This record gives sequence, structure tokens and C-alpha cells, in this order.
Amino acid sequence: MSDVGRVLLHAQTHQSRFVTELKEFVRYPSVSAQPKHTDDMQKCAMWLADHLSGIGLEYVKILPTRHHPIVYAEWQHAPGRPTVLIYGHYDVQPPDPLHEWISPPFEPTMRGNDLYGRGACDDKGQMFAHIKALESYLRTTDKLPVNIKCLFEGEEEIGSPHLASFLARNKRTLAADVAVLSDMPILAPDCPAITYAMRGGLSVELEVHGPRRDLHSGIFGGAVHNPLQALCAIIARLHDTQGRVAIPGFYDRVRHWSTEERAYMARTGPTDAQILRDAQVHQGWGECGYTLYERTTIRPALTVNGIGGGYQGAGNKSIIPARATAKLNFRLVPNQDPCEIERLFRQYMARLAPPTVRVTIRTHLAAKPALVDRHHPAMRAAVIAYRRGFGAMPVFLRSGGTIPVVNTLQEMLGIPTVLMGFALPDDRMHAPNEKFHLPNFYNGIATCIWFLAAVGAERGVTAALPAAAGANDGYGVSARPGGMSRDY
Amino acid sequence: MSDVGRVLLHAQTHQSRFVTELKEFVRYPSVSAQPKHTDDMQKCAMWLADHLSGIGLEYVKILPTRHHPIVYAEWQHAPGRPTVLIYGHYDVQPPDPLHEWISPPFEPTMRGNDLYGRGACDDKGQMFAHIKALESYLRTTDKLPVNIKCLFEGEEEIGSPHLASFLARNKRTLAADVAVLSDMPILAPDCPAITYAMRGGLSVELEVHGPRRDLHSGIFGGAVHNPLQALCAIIARLHDTQGRVAIPGFYDRVRHWSTEERAYMARTGPTDAQILRDAQVHQGWGECGYTLYERTTIRPALTVNGIGGGYQGAGNKSIIPARATAKLNFRLVPNQDPCEIERLFRQYMARLAPPTVRVTIRTHLAAKPALVDRHHPAMRAAVIAYRRGFGAMPVFLRSGGTIPVVNTLQEMLGIPTVLMGFALPDDRMHAPNEKFHLPNFYNGIATCIWFLAAVGAERGVTAALPAAAGANDGYGVSARPGGMSRDY
Repeated sequence: MSDVGRVLLHAQTHQSRFVTELKEFVRYPSVSAQPKHTDDMQKCAMWLADHLSGIGLEYVKILPTRHHPIVYAEWQHAPGRPTVLIYGHYDVQPPDPLHEWISPPFEPTMRGNDLYGRGACDDKGQMFAHIKALESYLRTTDKLPVNIKCLFEGEEEIGSPHLASFLARNKRTLAADVAVLSDMPILAPDCPAITYAMRGGLSVELEVHGPRRDLHSGIFGGAVHNPLQALCAIIARLHDTQGRVAIPGFYDRVRHWSTEERAYMARTGPTDAQILRDAQVHQGWGECGYTLYERTTIRPALTVNGIGGGYQGAGNKSIIPARATAKLNFRLVPNQDPCEIERLFRQYMARLAPPTVRVTIRTHLAAKPALVDRHHPAMRAAVIAYRRGFGAMPVFLRSGGTIPVVNTLQEMLGIPTVLMGFALPDDRMHAPNEKFHLPNFYNGIATCIWFLAAVGAERGVTAALPAAAGANDGYGVSARPGGMSRDY
Repeated sequence: MSDVGRVLLHAQTHQSRFVTELKEFVRYPSVSAQPKHTDDMQKCAMWLADHLSGIGLEYVKILPTRHHPIVYAEWQHAPGRPTVLIYGHYDVQPPDPLHEWISPPFEPTMRGNDLYGRGACDDKGQMFAHIKALESYLRTTDKLPVNIKCLFEGEEEIGSPHLASFLARNKRTLAADVAVLSDMPILAPDCPAITYAMRGGLSVELEVHGPRRDLHSGIFGGAVHNPLQALCAIIARLHDTQGRVAIPGFYDRVRHWSTEERAYMARTGPTDAQILRDAQVHQGWGECGYTLYERTTIRPALTVNGIGGGYQGAGNKSIIPARATAKLNFRLVPNQDPCEIERLFRQYMARLAPPTVRVTIRTHLAAKPALVDRHHPAMRAAVIAYRRGFGAMPVFLRSGGTIPVVNTLQEMLGIPTVLMGFALPDDRMHAPNEKFHLPNFYNGIATCIWFLAAVGAERGVTAALPAAAGANDGYGVSARPGGMSRDY
């Protein structure tokens, strides 16, 4: 039996223990956004560090940032072979609204072939596939086919605010040839996908301040401007009637794609019907002239993530509230720059805000969009890995999501990132009843095993590196070895 | 010393005990809107009933309704004298937002001359002034100058949904010549006021249903209609740019008032500056062509009491929420009918709702506006009472608030209601840090004592009654004895 054969057999034999371990991991309520979970973040990081030591990784460290720590580990005993940086994140989205969960978010529960729990899929389950691939190598062959550095972050769900400075401080330690991360859906269990583009993000919080205190809506209704009403009027003017964002200048830098690229997307990407089915909605919405796949990938978007103000309890309470807040989330595409968009947004708000209320804006997150060359040698390795791990050729997809690290790794370390997802479109990442489809977990582990083998055998990976640093166009377009056509 | 003199002396002598008792009363979290306080409502009703028995009232009963009970008591040993129905409510508004209270809402606390606590003013403190006036008579003279029926409701803050049916079933028991209630502000401690008009109310809850579950705003942002965004677009279209309600037909039945009435209002009512000061805002808002006093009394209003949807916790959460809700509150004026306004609102919503979301509407409360004749003999008694109790002539005011019982008493029992407030404009009724100014409590007790004496001496009160039943024009315009000019 070949080395890889024995490694795969180990993974197959220990599936049930792997699931038990994953459940332990999911049980930590590692919600990075909520201060009350700061301790849980620490405990989760410690569990993860212990686990990495346990499978045979070295130099395992919990590295502090100004907020939630980074867990680091490495294995560097493959001289001459490429170095792969495995990125993942152990923090999770808030579980709200809690009452919609069928089983509690932090009590991982099996139903059918799915493991339910917050983080089961995003990203604990998917990053754990990599960890179990490493274990399978180390337990059976006592070595890895490549050098490995693991960087597991605790702030991905809050926009990785301290990752860039961390990477800047640790460039030498983290030097690698390629990064890989699994934190996105494929199309279906039998249709794997490699993500080659992600949107950027900008999250802002808008607060409208009205009277100094809540006022009786009977006594003052009709004479005092209501901050909730003012907020609604502002939000109503963020989009025009065509579903386009109405902020002046918002589309100025949006890159227009060639007919060829749009045709490629139409051939490979999900249809409108598939996207509607995944979203479980009957009807699409948004910018005219684009498919739903295009609207969520090559077109920017602005969504309202939450609004709160006034009384929200049972029955009614007759008040003009003192304030109202809205959480807004932009998804940006090349060549939009989050800093410029923030400036345009603030200018527009200054214009829209009526004199009867006061509007303040806070920025929570800003991340640039990212593109990865579909023809990079590490992408070839991923194609091989998926074909063997899932038994099917992967398609190349764009994602509407944002993973700030992809652009950050490109800008800081000059390396491309292979975005190799194992989630399903209906895994409810960020929503109640998040789940991970365990057959994808098992196939994911096999894919990670094959990926490391293929990268180890792929000469191009290290060869591509020197080109990478120079090819950065500021929007995370990764290394393109000379002579390859730029057809994305 | 006259009878009244001894009664007033009793009230003065026992002020400190009265405050201690009021604190006991305020300590009950009798929040009618919130199911978790159902037991507290019962306990508060029992405390109140015990108290009424203790001061010498008779036939004290806790009368069940389909929800929160009514506390009833009477004293009927003044044959040939008028019967006064004292109305009050022992339920209170929800205390939210809790964190804005300086002292806990249900731990009544003295600061300066003010007693802080939810309900201290609205309406426990103000109704308690009547109770202590009754006690002062019964303890010193062993009798009252009029017959008394007390009707203390537990559902005023949720729109008195069961009061009309209760009154209909108990018409004979509750038969009276006039009602009095104290649940509104006067202008200042040295400027008492009698309210002769109240706006009606209509509270509705709008729910916008989007995707079946929260969706990832990266994956689906730009392709699925956001219910919060749809809600904002709808709410933005509830008003035009002139501050008028934009629902077609909304103003069709709004009564236009004579130049004389508006001049009377300008002479007697608060100025724009006073209203802005009371609201603690720098700038007014609303319908052009009307003073702020007019906008809040003779003009209808629509306010957004609360909006909730999506993520409202710390930081951000990238979702398109499954739903969004808004609580809306109309204040209606003669001759608007809440049922018709509800129909117009529903029609307008059906027109505004885009096909990409589903909109549902629930009605929480509907109450007609009310008017009381300023020249009714009982109003004369109130003028005398205030002049003696507060040492100043009261002004006649319109209120923007809604007290459904005023119209209901008029329609069901055919009697006018004297609206004799003891609150101050800055008592923060419905808001955090609600308070009751104790000098007003003491003057209020004296005013109640004088009011009962004056009504007992006022022949016109019973004489006016037969006219009352016929004079009801369906908008709560109360009895107008023949020959009196209709100048309100």
C-alpha cells in the first residue's frame, strides 16, 4: 500500500473519533463578537493548541493579539519541499436568534448525516478536516509531504482586525509558498468547487440620535422627529428603485468583466434557480442586467444586517425613542476600495441626515476584495485533490463572501491562497441550525490528504513564488506565473 | 374648623405615610403588556383592593376580565348627591430600556422632591391622590360629600381592550353623574390644567417576512430582498416630505377648527418653546402650518415606537434577516375613526408591499378621540378645586395622549369625564426615570378633596346628566347643558 493509501486508511478508520473530537471543538461558544465570550475564546484556543500538539505538530503556541489570540503550529521537516500555510478560524458567529435553533447551538447534535451546531461548518468543521489530514500523515508515516505552518485565527467573524499587524510582525515566521483555507461552500456533495474570487467587506453602524430620552408618543407625537423614522428614510435612500446602491460614486471603480469571463461564470456557476433554492426564496431581487450569481460575486451589494430602536417587547409601548441604530454591510468587488467607499458613504450620510436628528457612524470592518489566479500550480494540486477526495472534478467559483485573510496574505506575505471549501450551500453558515454534512467532512479530510501530496509533488508551487510578490495589483490578485493567460 | 378644613388637615398630617404607601404600590411591577408580569398584576390588584377596604370603602371587589382584573369599590351614603366615578389604572408601561434608569424602576426612590419609579406618576401616584382624598374624608368626617364609585383598571397601558365590554355588562352598577381621572400633566407646579380633549389611538405591528431563515449577507447579498430594507422603504413612505402622513384618505375626516378655537389654544396652551423644552429637543418637526401644540392635539400623528430585526448585539453579524417588525402608533383626532384608519393603512400597505417579501399586520389597540365640554358644571367644580388645591386658576388644555376610557365612559355610560392631571411635563411618563413631583401629590390630594366638596355642592352635575346621553356625537363629545355655547 502506498504512503497516501495508508494515510487515507487511517482517516477512514478513525472517522467516528474525529467526529467526537469535532463535537468537543464545537462545544466551545467561541463567539468573537461578544465580550461575554472572551473566556470561552481563550479556552477554545487552549483546546485547539493541545489538540495540535497531540497530533504531532511542533512549536505550538497561543499568540496574543490585542483581542483574541492566534493559535500557531508548524512541522518543518521536508527540506526542499514547498511550505503550505493552513489558515482557519476557531471563532464563530453569534448564535442569535437562539429560539430558532432546534438543538442548542453549542450542544453539537447529529441529525441524519449532519452535525448541527454553531461553527460545525464555519469554520471549525472545515479547518478540522485539515487537522485530521495532518494527523493521518503523522500517525501513519511519521512525516508530511510538505512543510506546514498552521495559523488559526480567533477574529475572522469580526473582520480579522489584528491579523494584518500580526502578519506584518511575523513575516519571516510565516513565510510560505502557498496558503490553503476551507471556509466556503461547494455546489453539492458530488460537485466540489474551488473559490477563486471573494468580495471585500465594509461593516458600518449607523446611529440616529433624536430626543435625549424616550418621549411619550401621545404627548409629543407629531412635533418631534422620530429617530427610527429618520433612520428608515435614510436607509430607504441607500438603494434606488432598480436595486442599485444609491451612494454617489459607489460604482465608479467597479471592474467590468469581459463577455468571456461572464460566459465562463454562466457555464460554471450556479443558476438563478439554484441560488433561489439555496436561499429558500421564491423570487430574486437586486441590480438589473445581472444574473443572481453575478449579483452576488462581481457586483457589490449593501445589506442591512440589523436595526434596533424603541420598544420591541410584547404588545406596544407608546414612545418616540431617543435613538435608533442600523448595522450595514457592504460587499465590495475589484477595484472598489473599502476606505474610499466608507468616505463616500459618510459624505452621503452627511447629505441625507436631516437637521432634526444627529447621525453618527462607526466602522467595524473593512476588507479588500480578493482574486486568485485559476491557473496557479497550487490550484492544479487542489483540482487533483478534489477529484480524488470527492471523486469529481471541481468547478471554479466566485464567492460573494469575504475572507479578509486572503487579501492580507497576498499583501503581507505575497502568497496566493487556495480556497478549498467543504461546506454545502444549505449548511446555514451564520444562521440558526448551522450544520456540517459529515460525508463532506470525510471527503474533505481525504481531499486535504491528497492536496498535501499533490503540492509536495508539484514543482510549480515554489517556482511560482518569486513572481507572486510583484504581481499584486492591490486587490489581492495572486501570483500569475509568466505566460499564463489572464482569463478570469 | 369646617369639615373640609379637618379633611385637609388630615391629608397634610399624614403626607409622609401616604408617600410610604405609594412606594409600596409602585413596588409592584404591574406591567400589563408583558405576560411574565401576570402574577404581579394580580398581586398589585390585591394590594389595591386591601387598601381601599382599609380606608373605609365598601363592596371592594377584584373583578376578572379576560385578562387583567379591574378593582372596584364604592361608597353610597349620600342620597340626593351626585355620584362620582373615579377612574384610574394600576398597570404601568414596560420599564425598558432598563439600563437607562438611575434607580431600578420598581424600587421607588426619592431624589429631591421627586419620587422615582415606573408608575410613580402614570398612574399610581395620580390615582392615589384620589384614594388619599377619600381616606381623609372618611377618617375625619366618616362620610363623603358625594357618592363614590372607584374603577381601577389593569389594562390602560395596553389600550383597555376589555373595558368596553366590562362597562356594557355593568352599566347599572357603574351608573354615575360624572367621572374623574388624573393621568396627565399640568403645565407647571404653579399652573394647573384641565384637559378637555384627548387624541384617539391606533397601534399596529407591521411584520415583513423575507427568506425562511437568516441568510449569509456575503453569499446572498445583492440577490435576495432584505426584509429590513423593505420595511424601511415602507416606513419612509408613511410620511411625505412635509411631515404629513402619506396614507391616502388619512386626513379626509380630520375636523378643521375655527380661528377662535385656535386663538384660544394659542392663548392658553404651551408655546413651541415650552414644548421643545419639555421634550428636551432643539428643533420641532412635523406638519407645516400648525404650532407644535396644535400638531400634538388637533392634528393626527403617526410615530414608530420600535423596530427590530436582524442582529442587534455587539459588533456585527453578516446576515440578511428572515424578518423585521415595526410597532406603529397613530394618534387620531375628531372625526377620524380608528377602524377606518386601520382599513386605509392596510390598503396602503397592500399597495406598498413589494412582491419579494410578505407583509403582515396586527392591530394591538384602537381608541376613539375624546372631547369634554369645557362648560360642564363638573368642570366648574374642577376649576374651584384646582384654585384651592394648587392656589392658581387652571387653564383648559388639549392633550395629545389617549385615554380610551374617556370615550368609552361617554359611549357606554353617557357621562363626561373630568381630566384633572397632577403630573408635570418632565415626569417622563412612559420613559426611563419616570417620577412624580411630591408637592403635586400633596396639592393633588387637596384638589381631590376640594373637587368632591365642589361637586357635592354643584347642583348642575346631576341636572346635566339627562342631556348627556343624547349629546354624544360618537366622538366622545360630552354632555353640553342647553344654552351653553359650543366654543371648543
